[in-house]
Amino acid sequence: MKYSKIPLSQTVVTLCKTHNVKHIVISPGSRNAPLTIGFTHDEFFKCYSIVDERCAAFFALGIAQQVQEPVAVVCTSGSALLNYYPAISEAYYSNIPLLVLSADRPKHLIDIGDGQTIKQKNVYGEHVLYSANLKLDLKDKDPKAADDELPIMRSIENKLERFLGLQKDIQSYNESEVHDAITVARLKSGPVHINIPFDEPLYETVDELGINPKPFSIADRTEKIDEFEIKSLLDVWHSAKRKMILIGVLHPSAIEEQWLQELADDDSVFVFTETTSNVHHPDFFPGIDKMIAPLDQEDFEALQPDILLTFGGMVVSKKIKAFLRQYKPESHWHVDLFKANDTFFCLDKHIKLTPNTFLKTFLPQVTHHTKSDYKSSWLKVRQKRRKLHDDYLKTIPFSDFTVFNALLKSIPKQSQLQVGNSSAIRYTQLFQLRKDIAIFCNRGTSGIDGSTSTAIGAAVAQKQRTTFITGDLSFFYDSNALWNNYIPDNFRIIVVNNYGGGIFRILPGHKNTDNFDTYFETKHHLTAKQLCEMYGLDYFKATDEKSLTDALDKFYNTSKRPKLLEIFTPSTVNDEVLLDYFKFIK
Amino acid sequence: MKYSKIPLSQTVVTLCKTHNVKHIVISPGSRNAPLTIGFTHDEFFKCYSIVDERCAAFFALGIAQQVQEPVAVVCTSGSALLNYYPAISEAYYSNIPLLVLSADRPKHLIDIGDGQTIKQKNVYGEHVLYSANLKLDLKDKDPKAADDELPIMRSIENKLERFLGLQKDIQSYNESEVHDAITVARLKSGPVHINIPFDEPLYETVDELGINPKPFSIADRTEKIDEFEIKSLLDVWHSAKRKMILIGVLHPSAIEEQWLQELADDDSVFVFTETTSNVHHPDFFPGIDKMIAPLDQEDFEALQPDILLTFGGMVVSKKIKAFLRQYKPESHWHVDLFKANDTFFCLDKHIKLTPNTFLKTFLPQVTHHTKSDYKSSWLKVRQKRRKLHDDYLKTIPFSDFTVFNALLKSIPKQSQLQVGNSSAIRYTQLFQLRKDIAIFCNRGTSGIDGSTSTAIGAAVAQKQRTTFITGDLSFFYDSNALWNNYIPDNFRIIVVNNYGGGIFRILPGHKNTDNFDTYFETKHHLTAKQLCEMYGLDYFKATDEKSLTDALDKFYNTSKRPKLLEIFTPSTVNDEVLLDYFKFIK
Repeated sequence: MKYSKIPLSQTVVTLCKTHNVKHIVISPGSRNAPLTIGFTHDEFFKCYSIVDERCAAFFALGIAQQVQEPVAVVCTSGSALLNYYPAISEAYYSNIPLLVLSADRPKHLIDIGDGQTIKQKNVYGEHVLYSANLKLDLKDKDPKAADDELPIMRSIENKLERFLGLQKDIQSYNESEVHDAITVARLKSGPVHINIPFDEPLYETVDELGINPKPFSIADRTEKIDEFEIKSLLDVWHSAKRKMILIGVLHPSAIEEQWLQELADDDSVFVFTETTSNVHHPDFFPGIDKMIAPLDQEDFEALQPDILLTFGGMVVSKKIKAFLRQYKPESHWHVDLFKANDTFFCLDKHIKLTPNTFLKTFLPQVTHHTKSDYKSSWLKVRQKRRKLHDDYLKTIPFSDFTVFNALLKSIPKQSQLQVGNSSAIRYTQLFQLRKDIAIFCNRGTSGIDGSTSTAIGAAVAQKQRTTFITGDLSFFYDSNALWNNYIPDNFRIIVVNNYGGGIFRILPGHKNTDNFDTYFETKHHLTAKQLCEMYGLDYFKATDEKSLTDALDKFYNTSKRPKLLEIFTPSTVNDEVLLDYFKFIK
Repeated sequence: MKYSKIPLSQTVVTLCKTHNVKHIVISPGSRNAPLTIGFTHDEFFKCYSIVDERCAAFFALGIAQQVQEPVAVVCTSGSALLNYYPAISEAYYSNIPLLVLSADRPKHLIDIGDGQTIKQKNVYGEHVLYSANLKLDLKDKDPKAADDELPIMRSIENKLERFLGLQKDIQSYNESEVHDAITVARLKSGPVHINIPFDEPLYETVDELGINPKPFSIADRTEKIDEFEIKSLLDVWHSAKRKMILIGVLHPSAIEEQWLQELADDDSVFVFTETTSNVHHPDFFPGIDKMIAPLDQEDFEALQPDILLTFGGMVVSKKIKAFLRQYKPESHWHVDLFKANDTFFCLDKHIKLTPNTFLKTFLPQVTHHTKSDYKSSWLKVRQKRRKLHDDYLKTIPFSDFTVFNALLKSIPKQSQLQVGNSSAIRYTQLFQLRKDIAIFCNRGTSGIDGSTSTAIGAAVAQKQRTTFITGDLSFFYDSNALWNNYIPDNFRIIVVNNYGGGIFRILPGHKNTDNFDTYFETKHHLTAKQLCEMYGLDYFKATDEKSLTDALDKFYNTSKRPKLLEIFTPSTVNDEVLLDYFKFIK
């Protein structure tokens, strides 16, 4: 076995192994050579090399999204780690465990004019759950270098003694910082940062580990059920006539079928599922916007719940937010191990359990279902809307709307769907997704900055085939995502290219002026064709219904290279079709 | 005239105008619509639309590098502004004035689960010189919204009164924060951040300004000469036998010829000029590495100065840093308005003047030149090295080394040269650059993340034609730089493509293993050809001396589109040639 000679590298690499951090995404650099050497010479780790750190971090995020375990990113000093930041903020708001390992110069070489050096300590501010700033191993340095660590010094003897003690202290300090950081990433499921100073020489190796980390216990995530709290919730629940459940971003099978069925059996319970919830039941209400958009004041009053129970992460639908902020429930409970957002300004309970644990505990204690037509009356509305939705599809020309209809039907069985921000996921929300498809989207910060990289990371980390649907701006923004040697052959990208930020045409701006085209829609005439050539993807193209059908016919077939399908849609038609849709289904 | 209806937008836009911030680089978004509307409807501003915020910020940095005035970047809320960070850190360490205007959600919509929302306040930490967090204008809101600003409230009357006062206070608070931020950016020449919350509706406009900002005085940058300090420096100067001057990154013509000549006339003064210094004199010593690399201990002792005087920004040469850290001068003075890095751990004076002001004040008071052969003896060495350099060129095969030799000779007269990190600038340092060429390189953080965008920004901001030389990793990293509608037709890009990070082959790693190829050199087979097709650049290619000569023959000719020349060099030859060079010139 080969190790970096530097104890600090040995410590970090060894403890990552102890903590079962398997996936390591490395960006090239010299300062991080000790880590690169350490990770890549141990077959325990699955290492990846990605040059652009922005893509590297989103790629790691995609892996972590799937494996739900901390995934490490490793970069050199300087501005490199700033390129991680967009993915880190996404990880923070999406509760995805990321472990940032940034190499740094030793303290005395910071802010004295050395190259590739910035103030790396705590650089991610409040967007990481833990910042560990490791201290340089002092073994090879003269005691003077440790001066700033030693507040008072009275004699050389004292100094040396203190220094040797410090040396030992530093090793145990570093060990416990690494332990704590990884533990927090795992238990609280979010990004953490370990900043690691290295001094030259950086490339020396040894055959034996020179460190012997203290044993420690790996903490498990535990859920504590507060029976007293559950009882008090039950009282409220039993007396409420209209219970609404709204489910945001959730992992597939986060909630067992049994509990979904229990909820469906209660006529006083109305369940809104966001597309990103991965929750399906015939009696639930996906396509939230379709339900909400046509409602008037009377309808809203009829829909207003007494209790709102929410599960999962961010909610895509702006319309449901506006509705519930105006027609507030008396109580809003959010069930989540980590966080509870007061999205509707009426949150009164954060139940710190996973949704499944909560339902498993709560539902068996529910003694009776309140007699109610709350759900059934809305199921009728749902039926009407679905019919109007289908009718509408027959009347409209080729456009984003018809394209998403066709695409979502085409997704292979039992596969994963990754969706980009922001039109792409909003269109997807208008359609019913099949139960056998697992869907993911970066809704933590809803950025367009790393969707492709995330999708590729996710595709790499699991066995199901992955289809990624994205808009053009988002796709071109993250074009470096394709600079990646790990893209599976069965990975499929679909770019819905409407020549700009089509979503701006839906917003209340001033369309069809030069100013709008340039600064809002940011029109372009780019195509993904050359990028496919450059990065070795098979390119498919569609410009109308016929060519789309033809393309989809072959698109999912087995191939030796990943494929990309680019669908050009008419930007000035798309917005009209979408706006008319909401009128039509009224 | 058309303005955003939102007073806060009017305030920011109006004050940017007052402060003469002309260039505004806008990335598309909805939350920043009030700013976009404001800036783009006033012809005073030169606005640009760039989608990828990482590129947008480096593009703005390139403009600011040239105009030496604050340039604004405008983005939406969420992760958008994190993509600015790499450019901001470069601006911070390169002392380039950047004004970040980030739109944000109102305070009550942060961290409650709304989309595209992060903790934007002070997000750039210590890498900006000022963080202004503007407060929302409350005119259109009910008094309740202002609750968190009002600590104690006793009655409705009180509340309303307090609210109206607060409203006025907020306007004047915001005005003074904007003034202060822009003033700091200008006077201290660095990046500042103004975070601006906007509430919906975002797109409404009015025909008249609703604000009337208080007049204020725009501060000028002043230099204060401390005659007493100058006198004491003169004493040291007069008694020193060996005075070394080392000039890092400087703007062309930062120092008047007259003072350079004065320095050249003193035989006890030895002037090392970095390529990025833009300083030229026949008696000075460019090509620092060429001078230093072959020296032995005796030589170093002969070269060790009594006084070291440094001007300008970062120093590229690692060899001079190592030399001066080991053979420390008795005194090190750094002359710079803003900062003094203790690069050699012996800094004892920070002279807070521009180099020209200092020399203009100091040199006329120098009474005598110490008789010395300090310079002349080294001029002989220089002559020998230059001859060996030329001899070496005759012996070597086509490689990065010969390519840089040819390229630097080819640069058009009276033009600008932008150089990427990191091999590109290091090779450039080995050759003598003509005096008529102005050279720039992002050496603040020495990142490979935004060199192309910076070069394009610089090309847009000034009239000289611009050539940009870059390595392949750096070029592909910033490929989105080409997604830019403002690239001048006479802009020229030269990509020296050695199929990976050639610089790693020079470093003491373990070459020619799979591990090295994958994680250090990060080998690839990409070419810039498809990107040229995609973004509308004329593509030229060279693979040997003959094809390079042919290509360069036509490359600088007038054209209707910008051009890119890609030169493929043999990676396994390049490193040998470079390492042998330093042996040869010994």
